[in-house]
Amino acid sequence: MKVLAGSSSKRTAKELAGILKADLVEVDQRVFPDGEVYVRVPEPLRGEEVVIVQTTFPTSSLLELLFLQEVAHDQGAAHITAVVPYYSYSRQDQVFKEGEIVSAKAVAELIELKADRFITVDPHKEHILGFFGIEAHGVSAVPLLAKHLEQMGVDTVLAPDKGALDRAQFAAKCLGAEFDYMEKTRISGTEVSMKAKSLDVRGKTVAIIDDIISTGGTIATASAELKRQGATRVIAACTHGLFLNNALPRLHANGCDQVICTDSIATDVSSVGCAAVIADVFLERRA
Amino acid sequence: MKVLAGSSSKRTAKELAGILKADLVEVDQRVFPDGEVYVRVPEPLRGEEVVIVQTTFPTSSLLELLFLQEVAHDQGAAHITAVVPYYSYSRQDQVFKEGEIVSAKAVAELIELKADRFITVDPHKEHILGFFGIEAHGVSAVPLLAKHLEQMGVDTVLAPDKGALDRAQFAAKCLGAEFDYMEKTRISGTEVSMKAKSLDVRGKTVAIIDDIISTGGTIATASAELKRQGATRVIAACTHGLFLNNALPRLHANGCDQVICTDSIATDVSSVGCAAVIADVFLERRA
Repeated sequence: MKVLAGSSSKRTAKELAGILKADLVEVDQRVFPDGEVYVRVPEPLRGEEVVIVQTTFPTSSLLELLFLQEVAHDQGAAHITAVVPYYSYSRQDQVFKEGEIVSAKAVAELIELKADRFITVDPHKEHILGFFGIEAHGVSAVPLLAKHLEQMGVDTVLAPDKGALDRAQFAAKCLGAEFDYMEKTRISGTEVSMKAKSLDVRGKTVAIIDDIISTGGTIATASAELKRQGATRVIAACTHGLFLNNALPRLHANGCDQVICTDSIATDVSSVGCAAVIADVFLERRA
Repeated sequence: MKVLAGSSSKRTAKELAGILKADLVEVDQRVFPDGEVYVRVPEPLRGEEVVIVQTTFPTSSLLELLFLQEVAHDQGAAHITAVVPYYSYSRQDQVFKEGEIVSAKAVAELIELKADRFITVDPHKEHILGFFGIEAHGVSAVPLLAKHLEQMGVDTVLAPDKGALDRAQFAAKCLGAEFDYMEKTRISGTEVSMKAKSLDVRGKTVAIIDDIISTGGTIATASAELKRQGATRVIAACTHGLFLNNALPRLHANGCDQVICTDSIATDVSSVGCAAVIADVFLERRA
């Protein structure tokens, strides 16, 4: 088995190769001055089981993934698995307005063209896996995040909204904590207040957990409110840390004491490696 | 027939729709803060002959093209033509070193997934059309550029190197001028001298013609040398003006009096519309 380390997932690829006792292949990747992506795989792949690890953020990384698949396919790889720790375009997963692109489906069709299997971590919605005409797995990094939160002494897990409650409940169960979701009340104009639906957060070490932190606006507001309501510490945890528009400084300025995420996207706070849960898909097959 | 104007080819699309007396459809296109591309086609396309005009430069435009094709296909368009005035990735058209991506082929496979026909203008190499499993046309904008150069009083057409001579010869024939290619001689280290192989440029209005101007380095050197050798005016003409790294100011600073290109890429000097030669593919079919 050869694990190809795409430029956006070098750490995950290295750890995955380690767990699977597979060869790690460093890819020669460049972006030309006109923005065109170039890749070269310096090892022969004929007859090999090839695993390409490449998160599709930023968006130019998607083309790199497709190019690596193409090279593996052209060289006669026996089986190609695309491991995409963060599957971008997953949030446009249905037609909200007539004539719209369903990006999650369109990108799935591009990936399945030259891959035999797809593995992603915590897809925004499970049903996007159904867009793939190939074997598709969504594994969860929540147990890994929960383990980390347990070490940090978290006793309360909150979802930033009701829609994200299942994830918070799952995390809470993993670390043996109580859970709830944040309820938003509009006070006036753009001003909103947020509080845990039923729990009292006074004196608690609280973790707000979500799948993606993008600009972090909601979680910043929630952090400030939780501190005002007496929480001792507030930690924001997510699988995929996009951290757009200076999200991290904004979170800290709003009372969020710590932010953690996985290495599905390589960030300064990617303290949780997600290779272990990805490896399970391969190890279950071997067992 | 509905002509969809992709964000990178609005002018070409409008002119093409005008020539073909087809409906022009403005596309709702956005790029989200995380870089993800969104498109929406505000008109129904079921049963329609759809023409999508979208140059694939900059590279995010490629995904927009693929998304527009997907929407047209999903809506049940009867026939989809992808018009890509500038086909990026055309320069990586063969394996130069083992294990390399042949991007021109990989991108062709992505486009043909949801298109029935492909039309491009002056592909860097003709053989890239063979990468498409669908009907593929390469039309030439050289006659349009030649007409423009004729009005500018050009009497000598030069290729920047021997490999580009065919294009210069074709342009020269169109405008009834003499032609030649520039020969490079290494003087010492990085210093090179360039001169027309056989022609004397003294007192001449010279056009250097190429398919793509990227950073314009060679043409800047050639312009300076031609001026030194007595050319009265030097004009640089190309189909695809990428103009990377301040190419235009550099060309002017080196004695190039004027630069012209087509609107295959929208630039400040896109004085030649390429819709007319694209339209020929449709009009020949009707005839």
